[in-house]
Amino acid sequence: MSDMLDRLEQLKNDDIVPMHMPGAKRNMNICSMQNPYGIDITEIDGFDNFHNPTGIIKCGFERAAKLFGAKESLFLINGSSAGILSAICGATNRGDKIIVARNVHCSVIHAIYLNELRPLYVYPKVIDAYCGIYGAVNPDDVQKLFISNEKVSAVVITSPTYEGMVSDIKKISDIVHKHGAVLIVDEAHGAHFHFHKEFPISAVCCGADLVIQSIHKTLPALTQTALLHICSDIVNAEKVKMYWNIYQTTSPSYILMASIDRCITIIEQDGKRLYAQYIYRLLNLRNEIKKLHYIKLIDTDDISKIVLCVKNGKVFYNVIKDIYHIQLEMASLHYVIAMTSVCDTDEYYNRFLYALKNLDKKEMEILNHLKMIENIDIVKAKTCITIYDALNKSFSGKCELVKLKNSIGRVACKSVCFYPPGINLINPGELITENLVKKIQDGLINGLEVIGLEINNSVNKMNLYDEVHILCLK
Amino acid sequence: MSDMLDRLEQLKNDDIVPMHMPGAKRNMNICSMQNPYGIDITEIDGFDNFHNPTGIIKCGFERAAKLFGAKESLFLINGSSAGILSAICGATNRGDKIIVARNVHCSVIHAIYLNELRPLYVYPKVIDAYCGIYGAVNPDDVQKLFISNEKVSAVVITSPTYEGMVSDIKKISDIVHKHGAVLIVDEAHGAHFHFHKEFPISAVCCGADLVIQSIHKTLPALTQTALLHICSDIVNAEKVKMYWNIYQTTSPSYILMASIDRCITIIEQDGKRLYAQYIYRLLNLRNEIKKLHYIKLIDTDDISKIVLCVKNGKVFYNVIKDIYHIQLEMASLHYVIAMTSVCDTDEYYNRFLYALKNLDKKEMEILNHLKMIENIDIVKAKTCITIYDALNKSFSGKCELVKLKNSIGRVACKSVCFYPPGINLINPGELITENLVKKIQDGLINGLEVIGLEINNSVNKMNLYDEVHILCLK
Repeated sequence: MSDMLDRLEQLKNDDIVPMHMPGAKRNMNICSMQNPYGIDITEIDGFDNFHNPTGIIKCGFERAAKLFGAKESLFLINGSSAGILSAICGATNRGDKIIVARNVHCSVIHAIYLNELRPLYVYPKVIDAYCGIYGAVNPDDVQKLFISNEKVSAVVITSPTYEGMVSDIKKISDIVHKHGAVLIVDEAHGAHFHFHKEFPISAVCCGADLVIQSIHKTLPALTQTALLHICSDIVNAEKVKMYWNIYQTTSPSYILMASIDRCITIIEQDGKRLYAQYIYRLLNLRNEIKKLHYIKLIDTDDISKIVLCVKNGKVFYNVIKDIYHIQLEMASLHYVIAMTSVCDTDEYYNRFLYALKNLDKKEMEILNHLKMIENIDIVKAKTCITIYDALNKSFSGKCELVKLKNSIGRVACKSVCFYPPGINLINPGELITENLVKKIQDGLINGLEVIGLEINNSVNKMNLYDEVHILCLK
Repeated sequence: MSDMLDRLEQLKNDDIVPMHMPGAKRNMNICSMQNPYGIDITEIDGFDNFHNPTGIIKCGFERAAKLFGAKESLFLINGSSAGILSAICGATNRGDKIIVARNVHCSVIHAIYLNELRPLYVYPKVIDAYCGIYGAVNPDDVQKLFISNEKVSAVVITSPTYEGMVSDIKKISDIVHKHGAVLIVDEAHGAHFHFHKEFPISAVCCGADLVIQSIHKTLPALTQTALLHICSDIVNAEKVKMYWNIYQTTSPSYILMASIDRCITIIEQDGKRLYAQYIYRLLNLRNEIKKLHYIKLIDTDDISKIVLCVKNGKVFYNVIKDIYHIQLEMASLHYVIAMTSVCDTDEYYNRFLYALKNLDKKEMEILNHLKMIENIDIVKAKTCITIYDALNKSFSGKCELVKLKNSIGRVACKSVCFYPPGINLINPGELITENLVKKIQDGLINGLEVIGLEINNSVNKMNLYDEVHILCLK
């Protein structure tokens, strides 16, 4: 029987083009490390202490701060998730109000639960109604929430989004600071911004106070590595660092830390040349994609993201994988995302483009028989009880499983999301609407992974309403 | 300039015997993985979803449960720390009382802070007064705390300790369950127990409800990998799993997961032979060490730990490293620990023994001039305010830095510990005693790493009292 390592090694031999994370993209000309078991150590002499850094690790933090333009940077070896928890818990007191973009990552909802925060949602505009893609957060909406609510401690914005849409962080930060709050930007998908002028300006340089970047997503670094940047003096850095300590293991992996450190070295030493090459190739690729007839390249602020509007995301994703051996990053109902990075090769783009050109010709024939899916408009959620109370009730017998079809008008006890992107469709404590039920069903029918439901193993597309349950308040 | 990866690769070439974690011990005959960048992926098709496992990852969890004898097992890619936070937060409600062995890992104190728990300490007996080594928790002491306190939700015990001392988990679990509480055992250092009868019986098989094991510590697995075992029905598994989701990144490393999975494969397929060989060699090594005159092998329940009583731990640790190229796991004031594992080679033990024999001859000469350090008795701590309140005050200007020499009688706002082992000498909110100040000074004089103090960079051994500060309540 083959185990996970066997399967990973097999995958490598399958010659699949990785249009997905991590940004290292199996490019061994740029990223190289020997058998990790040979160099894996604990915190022995000369190798510093992650939780009390004074030597080589501290040096890495300082190199990161310099490279990314931050006041202070901390390595994250438990991903951006740990950085988001640390930033939010460090910038708030228990029970505080915070303004939160509705399209935040589920880790933000986790922080809200942990610190019993009261979220005020700001809804980004939808830039593509058919695809259902969120765009920027409107600074005026943030301003309005400040005016109608007192004592907001922090604002949390995702910029760029998974789809590469960027908010005006400069303007938002001015508003946030005018009201005495802290701006936290989840820039998990924007760690590459600082390294070429074709990309948007990083939130680190736009007035955000705390910025979290997943370096594994778009830079040459191993999965699970990220950075937490402290960018201003108005943050309680000691408190943020306490949580950074709490949410990360006392046995940190030197493989992961060394991968962050090496990522810095690569960019420091060769970044200029690598990014010039990459942007040249990327712009060419995008120009070629724009020439396609049926597959539509969606305009994104971050050009590194190739967001393609297609009839059926999951079918497109499967066809390009099975026939052309191109692994995309994700499929949603009506679009797919391919991720690019500085580690891409000419071969990757040539094969990707070849596949797209062929699929474009066949898009009508292949996909025509599929039912056209209506995308559901984003409707503002109605909060009935707090996230903290709702989740706690889910453990105390005050909830029950309800058939999805019967759940309209009930209050959800758990969050439900499509994964990826891991953005909650509904948060614990919110009212279940007809639109939500339809959207979940569309996701299930189209083979998206839906997290947060109880799905009977024997479920098939014929009896989705009967076999899918959602946990509701009694 | 060399970065961290360069330094790790250099260390490998330095031909140092690793008598420390991780348990993989650079033994490439047992542990092998290619360039991790070549096989690093995100959660793409066919590779399951860590936070909603249904495929290869779920299969790994099931294999772990079967191998370790648990009802259900979960991979941890944020170390045992994340498992401890998940277990404690999952087994308690905010503000609950819990019984906690005084020698728990600092992550337990973190969980107490996060959930505002009220700890009742049980003090393990000290088995070696000179070395200051904690032994087992007395079940009667746990029983007494239950009798004098109502509504205790959980009990947290560290067994084995860093020094390999094991508590009577069977007896303790009977007491805990009689009182309707949950028993959580931090078995971080005991992941190997289940694989040979020469080791103590694992807490998984002794009635504990939740058991956390660091597989990287004593098994062939990469640093930062661990397991959370759910062993009974009285645990609210859903709640534990919610925290397990929260405290771990949504971008889990497949390198780490594959390393856990491969560890299971190694033990499944070849464990019997490997452990028979290992125990044979280990018993020989221990017998030889017992013949030494000045270096004393301390009796430990877990024979995998080589705990050596010496005059000055740090000097011994440095000498054996610098002269004999043996890297030990840790040094305390009067003892050192060498860790062994199934991946040790004959060469490691031969070189280690050669060094010990030589040092034993010279122990008198080399170490004789050193001042004999008095070990400080363990005195029960006096809690003045809760851990939650003390830490929160440390961020709100209600604390001040006080010179260590002037701090006796004040209340600490932060924890202070020697690292390793990362067991707090004082917890936030406790009274600073003369004994504590002496112990901290002894640690500093002898070059132990002390975490939680403000130490002026220019500090030297002459002015320790003047330049070292501790954060106290105003």
